[in-house]
Amino acid sequence: MTDIKLNHLAIVVDDMDAALRFWSESLGLTQAGAVESIPAEAVDIAILELGDCHIELIQPTTVDSGVAKYLAKRGAGLHHLCLEVPDLDATLAELRKRGCELINETPRQRDGRRYAFVHPGSTGGVLLEFYESIAADPRG
Amino acid sequence: MTDIKLNHLAIVVDDMDAALRFWSESLGLTQAGAVESIPAEAVDIAILELGDCHIELIQPTTVDSGVAKYLAKRGAGLHHLCLEVPDLDATLAELRKRGCELINETPRQRDGRRYAFVHPGSTGGVLLEFYESIAADPRG
Repeated sequence: MTDIKLNHLAIVVDDMDAALRFWSESLGLTQAGAVESIPAEAVDIAILELGDCHIELIQPTTVDSGVAKYLAKRGAGLHHLCLEVPDLDATLAELRKRGCELINETPRQRDGRRYAFVHPGSTGGVLLEFYESIAADPRG
Repeated sequence: MTDIKLNHLAIVVDDMDAALRFWSESLGLTQAGAVESIPAEAVDIAILELGDCHIELIQPTTVDSGVAKYLAKRGAGLHHLCLEVPDLDATLAELRKRGCELINETPRQRDGRRYAFVHPGSTGGVLLEFYESIAADPRG
């Protein structure tokens, strides 16, 4: 048994309105809030609820970010998985010990969450985000 | 609200042993059963439990299947999402009405489940499988 669970899966899109028409209108997934602009990451993001996890639709807002280059090279589609772990530092230490290449050697922090990405070359081709909720952390 | 939930996400791999070392040994996800060969689809499949859903690792066993061509063209990585719906026929009818291109006009059936794939060109780049469990269907 493990305490790892899927937090979200991210899809890079080239047309947010068209993507929302499919996922929200055609499929009927509930959109959580409005489309949010995150200038620091040069993306617009929409969240769609999907049971215990959610889908993130990501549209780059510049042409030179990592996501923008991914979109230009590979086209719209599945981008990364985000796994929620109980202890991010322990997970990253274990992965490092096993030779995995971390994109963020030091976890990033935003909105009550700490997260770090692991290079797809270390996971068999999947860009993986690991995330720990710290909103309810008594040490916080 | 919607009754759609994520059943599994599928990852195409080029080295099942290496993939299992990462997902099962390094990350600690529980493997459900042994690696299964499915000659009819020319793949080997391993299942990893992930909370309420699971990850399917898929390795093609021939060079001419759709999955094998995908692997050759795009490399190992995320392949498709499978969404569980309460009424597959109703979902497919709705998608058809909205102009989506179905890969399986007639759902396929195997092991107590009916499923059909929708072309990524109709979903914004994501190969989508829709699935309905029929094992406990009283009409069955």
